[in-house]
Amino acid sequence: MIKIGYLGPKGTFSFEAMKKYTGNGPYDAQDYLSIPEIILAVQDGKLDEAIVPIENSIEGAVNATMDMIATEAGLMIKAELVLPIREHLLVKPGTDISGIRYVLSHPQPLGQCRRFLSGQLPYAQTKAVYSTSAAAQEVAEGSNELAAIGSAAAAAEYGLEIAKTDIQDNHNNHTRFIVVGMNDSPKSGNDKTSIVFSTEDEPGSLYRVLDIFNLWDINMARIESRPAKHRLGRYIFFVDLLGHREDGDLRDALIMVSRKTSFLKILGSYPIFREPSEDK
Amino acid sequence: MIKIGYLGPKGTFSFEAMKKYTGNGPYDAQDYLSIPEIILAVQDGKLDEAIVPIENSIEGAVNATMDMIATEAGLMIKAELVLPIREHLLVKPGTDISGIRYVLSHPQPLGQCRRFLSGQLPYAQTKAVYSTSAAAQEVAEGSNELAAIGSAAAAAEYGLEIAKTDIQDNHNNHTRFIVVGMNDSPKSGNDKTSIVFSTEDEPGSLYRVLDIFNLWDINMARIESRPAKHRLGRYIFFVDLLGHREDGDLRDALIMVSRKTSFLKILGSYPIFREPSEDK
Repeated sequence: MIKIGYLGPKGTFSFEAMKKYTGNGPYDAQDYLSIPEIILAVQDGKLDEAIVPIENSIEGAVNATMDMIATEAGLMIKAELVLPIREHLLVKPGTDISGIRYVLSHPQPLGQCRRFLSGQLPYAQTKAVYSTSAAAQEVAEGSNELAAIGSAAAAAEYGLEIAKTDIQDNHNNHTRFIVVGMNDSPKSGNDKTSIVFSTEDEPGSLYRVLDIFNLWDINMARIESRPAKHRLGRYIFFVDLLGHREDGDLRDALIMVSRKTSFLKILGSYPIFREPSEDK
Repeated sequence: MIKIGYLGPKGTFSFEAMKKYTGNGPYDAQDYLSIPEIILAVQDGKLDEAIVPIENSIEGAVNATMDMIATEAGLMIKAELVLPIREHLLVKPGTDISGIRYVLSHPQPLGQCRRFLSGQLPYAQTKAVYSTSAAAQEVAEGSNELAAIGSAAAAAEYGLEIAKTDIQDNHNNHTRFIVVGMNDSPKSGNDKTSIVFSTEDEPGSLYRVLDIFNLWDINMARIESRPAKHRLGRYIFFVDLLGHREDGDLRDALIMVSRKTSFLKILGSYPIFREPSEDK
């Protein structure tokens, strides 16, 4: 059994991502309360793999994940997975939604469903709780005046009914997750490589690194900066490149990058995620 | 009187930054509860200026500020200001710290003082509240078993005593604030220009923009990406450049940038912040 950790409790979007990743495979899933704890558990050998969110199409980068994978030695990214974030209105089976007086969820889903709430449930009060799973649980144990905002997985987990589907204001809401372990993945022919580096403190040093990728015709799918933490105005950069680190051009480019940076860590190569149904 | 808005209540670090910026000038300061509200108040003409945090040396970019200045038309950055984030242990005057049972603050300062708390107050429970000011107020109105973590301004505002100074684990903790209004600033000879842009959805398009700055010898002080929000994997980029937008080279480079981007907004030119005591 492969031990995999996720951000719990059951019914979170991380739980849903974990189920999508593990499928019917031989996995023993364990829930954790925070991203640093999950990643440290892999580091300490308590877990074989961890699945953690890294970016959302609306909120942006997940800083806790970025900071942990930059600093914790030895871990590599072995897979990525994109999950559509679909928020539903969850109630106890048989509840009449006209009687709902309180809507419970984490502050983020509450904010992402503001238009639905003011349009459809203008007299209901919102109540912020620790997680969408906690909201679902409270609804399951409470009166018919309560509803929660949460995922289909949360509904299934706590025996709730989906009264309204897809109530989020922005329908282009996706979260990308990564799977980290002690190794990355072999070449699949359609791969991505993630790196993190810091440059010398001199003008044009970031440009000179990007120039290397341009010279070797390597495409950049993403660039993010995070503070270097020792001084305001100093950054580390996360870059996702198309290709596998064992491809000749990418390997040569990374050797050159290591000469032009003060710190370089190859976070791993892994297949680019594609929905089974995706055509283009 | 110039009407300026800040993230309140009194005693927050934003309040402290606002006092540092306004000095003894003719300002009427008004506190707001969220960054979007402050920025929209400038847009609507209810405020002349707003001072908002934009990045912290440990936590990184302040997303609410980045997203508002990218999308709200007409506003310009006219100044920047850096504030050291000094967290103190605040108690009612005369309190013996060995009797403290509860330490109150916003979750972020509680997290940033973890080492101090476990070392010096191992038996005290932490309690997360909405803001450091709310924590200070609760301590001021409560028993001698309570302490808050907060700023010197919060101590002054709520009549508390600083029992321990600089209790944050990382002493390189600074926040950069920007002042936005309807105009930016004239040339001072030591300026910075902030822009935001999105590129065409084709390989190498970000590189081609940075290449323009390289050609014109313009130095980049910062680059940040934020999601474009309509699709995962599409970004907008915030870049700070050294120089004023009326400098010949920078002006010419920006004309070229406007030809190579699908969207470009010049957020303003303003003097680079320097502490009065700073030598280099």
